[in-house]
Parts: sequence; structure tokens; C-alpha cells
Amino acid sequence: MIDGSAGEKVVASLKDIAPDFSNYLLEYPFGDIYARPNLDLRSREIATIAALTAMGNAQPQLKVHIEAALNVGVKPEEIIEVMMQMSVYAGFPAALNGLNVTKQVFQERQIVLSNK
Amino acid sequence: MIDGSAGEKVVASLKDIAPDFSNYLLEYPFGDIYARPNLDLRSREIATIAALTAMGNAQPQLKVHIEAALNVGVKPEEIIEVMMQMSVYAGFPAALNGLNVTKQVFQERQIVLSNK
Amino acid sequence: MIDGSAGEKVVASLKDIAPDFSNYLLEYPFGDIYARPNLDLRSREIATIAALTAMGNAQPQLKVHIEAALNVGVKPEEIIEVMMQMSVYAGFPAALNGLNVTKQVFQERQIVLSNK
Amino acid sequence: MIDGSAGEKVVASLKDIAPDFSNYLLEYPFGDIYARPNLDLRSREIATIAALTAMGNAQPQLKVHIEAALNVGVKPEEIIEVMMQMSVYAGFPAALNGLNVTKQVFQERQIVLSNK
Amino acid sequence: MIDGSAGEKVVASLKDIAPDFSNYLLEYPFGDIYARPNLDLRSREIATIAALTAMGNAQPQLKVHIEAALNVGVKPEEIIEVMMQMSVYAGFPAALNGLNVTKQVFQERQIVLSNK
Amino acid sequence: MIDGSAGEKVVASLKDIAPDFSNYLLEYPFGDIYARPNLDLRSREIATIAALTAMGNAQPQLKVHIEAALNVGVKPEEIIEVMMQMSVYAGFPAALNGLNVTKQVFQERQIVLSNK
Repeated sequence: MIDGSAGEKVVASLKDIAPDFSNYLLEYPFGDIYARPNLDLRSREIATIAALTAMGNAQPQLKVHIEAALNVGVKPEEIIEVMMQMSVYAGFPAALNGLNVTKQVFQERQIVLSNK
Repeated sequence: MIDGSAGEKVVASLKDIAPDFSNYLLEYPFGDIYARPNLDLRSREIATIAALTAMGNAQPQLKVHIEAALNVGVKPEEIIEVMMQMSVYAGFPAALNGLNVTKQVFQERQIVLSNK
Repeated sequence: MIDGSAGEKVVASLKDIAPDFSNYLLEYPFGDIYARPNLDLRSREIATIAALTAMGNAQPQLKVHIEAALNVGVKPEEIIEVMMQMSVYAGFPAALNGLNVTKQVFQERQIVLSNK
Repeated sequence: MIDGSAGEKVVASLKDIAPDFSNYLLEYPFGDIYARPNLDLRSREIATIAALTAMGNAQPQLKVHIEAALNVGVKPEEIIEVMMQMSVYAGFPAALNGLNVTKQVFQERQIVLSNK
Repeated sequence: MIDGSAGEKVVASLKDIAPDFSNYLLEYPFGDIYARPNLDLRSREIATIAALTAMGNAQPQLKVHIEAALNVGVKPEEIIEVMMQMSVYAGFPAALNGLNVTKQVFQERQIVLSNK
Repeated sequence: MIDGSAGEKVVASLKDIAPDFSNYLLEYPFGDIYARPNLDLRSREIATIAALTAMGNAQPQLKVHIEAALNVGVKPEEIIEVMMQMSVYAGFPAALNGLNVTKQVFQERQIVLSNK
């Protein structure tokens, strides 16, 4: 899975409470949607992190998809741009909270930005 | 402006009520954010239509940005993919309502999808 | 389908723009989720109209599910109660806007409430 | 009631479908909350139009409260400022859609802004 | 109160800051809404947990109402079904975050699911 | 800046990840919007805490603006009123979560309410 160990943790966390939901997660979003042609994975992850940043109520999933975006080749600087752009559509708090999650991921992965 | 006549209509609609707000729109989102390097316009418009579809409370702006996405080279089929993907993150109603706005734009522009 | 002709209209509206999305709608929400045991259809429709009323940005889908709720035996008075209760969790505007959609459905179906 | 005929229309619209809800509206928001000391009505209406503009899914109620704000002495220019400020917290689409509702109210009341 | 000690904690937490708000909580939601006939308490709690899961920004209150749902006889398996169903209307992140809160409540109450 | 050390912390937190975004924060919300005439700072902060409480997904920013509101002369009792009023427009959970953030700020500043 493109979201690697983070995705596996989600599946594991559901084992005791809703194992069927893991199957739906693997079937619908991953099996059906992300496997479709017509849109490259890079663009798909950009769309997802934009949406989750704008919605602002799904920080664990935003973290998973910042990881996934990096895994499919979205550059760290591009992720930052998406977050900043969300200030226009969902307000500065949404952008700030998204940047804060991004910062955590970058620190865990020891990513240093060139524009620092 | 990348969103063409739709963007001009927004500015015109503000003339009588909040002319300063037109200036802010031209300065911050367009002058500052969209003019930044590090993320191509195609990705920026994908991020925006994803966010507006997921939020579900900004249909006039979603319409403007579907137009803008087409203007910067996002393919009609790609826009459809973004909308469908939003069902995963914001639910099927958000995706359906986004697809409905998309349908209006495509009809106005007489766009016929190849996968019809 | 429990939501009758309203559901068919949704599928028809997708024919030209996103025919695959009709399949996903039939497979995941209807084939997978609503077909599951452990929760009766009456409770499922109550859950759905509560959620859509609270979210407040999915009025076409709320209309479909008020129809569906009536079709599976939720009484008109019960639908009104769910809407009023949403004032507690999502505010009075969400409840008022949900009641307004309900009123349209009841008028179309010529439903007269006993507590009028 | 501070929101005048607009408020009366809300009560009338509930008569056939949820007459008890009119009572709750009169009792809780108006009888309990707006009647409290410690915050002047002007500030209360500013708070309400800010919240409804930011939420973006309650345009009929926003219209009622722009009327109410004018009725308790909030100046038209101040309402415009609140809307523009919401671009910072909820994004430019929320502000634009709020300004559009404001424009309708001002046109109906034949209000001409001095900063035009 | 149907939400037991969790509800009492809410009232206690308000004592120093907004004691009047405790009264409103007891009067409007509990005294007025939940005491109404026409909808059984089981359905009311299903409606509430559906709405709070879909909204995704009220986890402390979702926890209180998962407890309340169990207290009025909603079965643990039914609560899981409501959460999973919310993936359709509010997206998979909303469902996952709701399931995570549910998991906490079930662990505290040492509830073991039969479909594990 | 009217939000004092809290605002400085926001700027500092962006230093490593998105230093340009600090500039936008200083330029657009503070330089452009809050510096405008036509609405006093007291009303601006009331509008902001109302919106952030109603949105319910921006608690760090709500905390910053409760501080800012106190700094520009909004009385602690007035902040409590705004929060309680939001129960009408965004539901009781939004009001309760806003009051909880307020409680933290008041405890840090050792503010004791007269209506305790």
C-alpha cells in the first residue's frame, strides 16, 4: 500500500472493533478508487492532503496521507505549498493546523527543507 | 487570471458592496499564493477543486475552479476522478454534489467525455 | 432500492459524467453497508437523516433519505423529531434547514401530520 | 423580536410541520440566550453573522441575522467588515458567499454604502 | 440522566466558568428534546452518535453519547454499524475517528464484541 | 500584535517549515484586515472567537484569540456569553468545547469570574 506502515497501523487498530471495515478500506478506497486510471497517484495524494487540510477534522488521516504523498514522489516543498494554499479556501487556521501535522511528519523522517 | 471570465464576474459582483475585497482577492490568493514557485498550476487547481468538493459549502467557487482547472490543462476525466475520490474523504454526497457542478460546467463548454 | 425513484434519478444523473460512480454507489453503500446485518434499516435511515441534517451541506441527499426513511417505515413524526433533536448537536439553523427539506417531501407526498 | 418580519416568517413556516419547534426557538435562543445581560445585542449579532458566514451552510439564517444586525444598530459598513474578516478564518469562498447574501439584503433595503 | 456519570462530569466542568450553561443543558436538550414522545430513546441516541461521528469535531460529546447509547440498550454491534455507515455520508476518516472513540469506550467498559 | 506572545509563538513555529507563511499572516490578516477602519478591534475579536467556536476545528487558534480578545478589552464574562450563544448556531458540543478552551485560558491568567 502506498501509505506503507501507517496504513497497516490503521488496519491493525480496527482488528478488535471493526475487522470488516478494514476490508472495506482495502476494497473501496484502495481497490476501487486509487487503482483507477485517468489520474496519477501524485495528483491523487495532492487532492487528498488538500481536502483533509481544508476539512480540518481528520488529523490522523492527514498524517497518513502526508506520508503517502512523500512515498509517491510529492516533494516536501510541494506539500507545504498545498497547505499554504488552503488558507485561501478554508482559512488560515486550517492551513496552520495542516502545517503543524506536516512538521511532525518531516521531523520523524528527518526531512530538511531547502527553503529553510 | 487563470480563471478567466468567471474570475472577472466575481470582481464585478463586489464592486458595489466590498470593492476593497476584490483587491485582497487579487493580492493574496492570486498575487501571493498562485504566483509562488514550487507547485505547478495544474496541481494547484487539483488541490483547490478537491478541497472545495470536500467542504461542500462553496459551489459557486467550485464552479470557478473547475473552469480554471480546465484552463490550465487539467483534463475533464481528471476532474471527474478528483470528485469521485472525494467520496472516500468527505462522503458520497460531497462527491455527488461536486459531480453535479462539474456536469454544469461541461455542458456549458460542450465537453463530451471519452469514457461516456 | 429502498430509496426508490429518487435513487434511480441519482444513477441516471451520473450516466453522462461518471457512470462508474453509479456502480460504486450500488456496490459500497447499498451492496456492502446497507445489506449488513446487526442494524435494522429503520435505524440506518434515522442515522443517515440525522447526519445529513447535522452536516447541512447535502440537501439533495437529505431529500432522498427522508423518502427512504418513509419507505422503510420511519413515521413522519419520527423524522420531525430527529430534525428537532439536531438543533442540540448542530444548531438551530441545521434543524430549520432540515425541517424545510422535510416539509417539501411531505407536501409532495401529501403527508399530513397528526400533531398539526 | 429583533429580527422582525424575517423571524415571523420562520415561525410561520414551521406551523404545519413542527409547531413545537417555534416554541423552542422563542424560548431558548430568544427567551434564554439573547435576553441575557453581560453582552450587548450589537455584539451578539456581530457574533452570529460571523459564525454563520464562517459555517457557510446556513444562508437563510444568515440573511435573517444581517437584518437583525441592522435592526440593533450595526452599521452596514461594519457588517461588510465582519464578512471580509471571515476570509481569514474560514476562507475566501465563505467571505464571498456571505457578502453575496449581504448584497441581497442591502438591495432589498435600498442601502447604499458610503465607501462605494 | 441517561448519560450517567459522563453527563455529571460535563455539568461539573461548567461550574466555575458557565454555571448557567449547565441549566440550559438540563433544560433544553434533556428537559425539552429528549423528554419528547414520538421517538424512542434508542433511536435518539443512534441519531446523535451518527451526527457527532459525521461532524467529526465533537469527540468528547461523541464519547458521552456512545455511553448513553449503551445505557439505553443500543447494542455494541449496532454502534459499530452506525460508525461504519457514516463512511458513506461523511467519509472514511470520520468513520475511523468515530470507531477509535468507540474503541476507547468499549475498552473502559470491558465490552468484547461477538464478531471479533 | 494584539495577540501578544501567543502570536509570536505561531510565527516561531513556522520558522523551519513555512517561513513565508509567517509573512502572509503578518501581511493579510494583521496588515490588511485587522488594520482596517470601520470596525473596532473589540468587535473584530468577538467575531473571530464566535466563528472559531462555531467551526470547532481550530482550537489552537481559538485559544490565541481568546487571549487577543482579553487584550483588546473584551471582558471575560462577554467571552463566556459568545460561547454560550454559539450553542444556538453550531450546537451545544461546539459551545462546550469552546468553553473548555476558555477555561484553560482563564486558569492560565488566573481570571476569576464575578458570576461564579
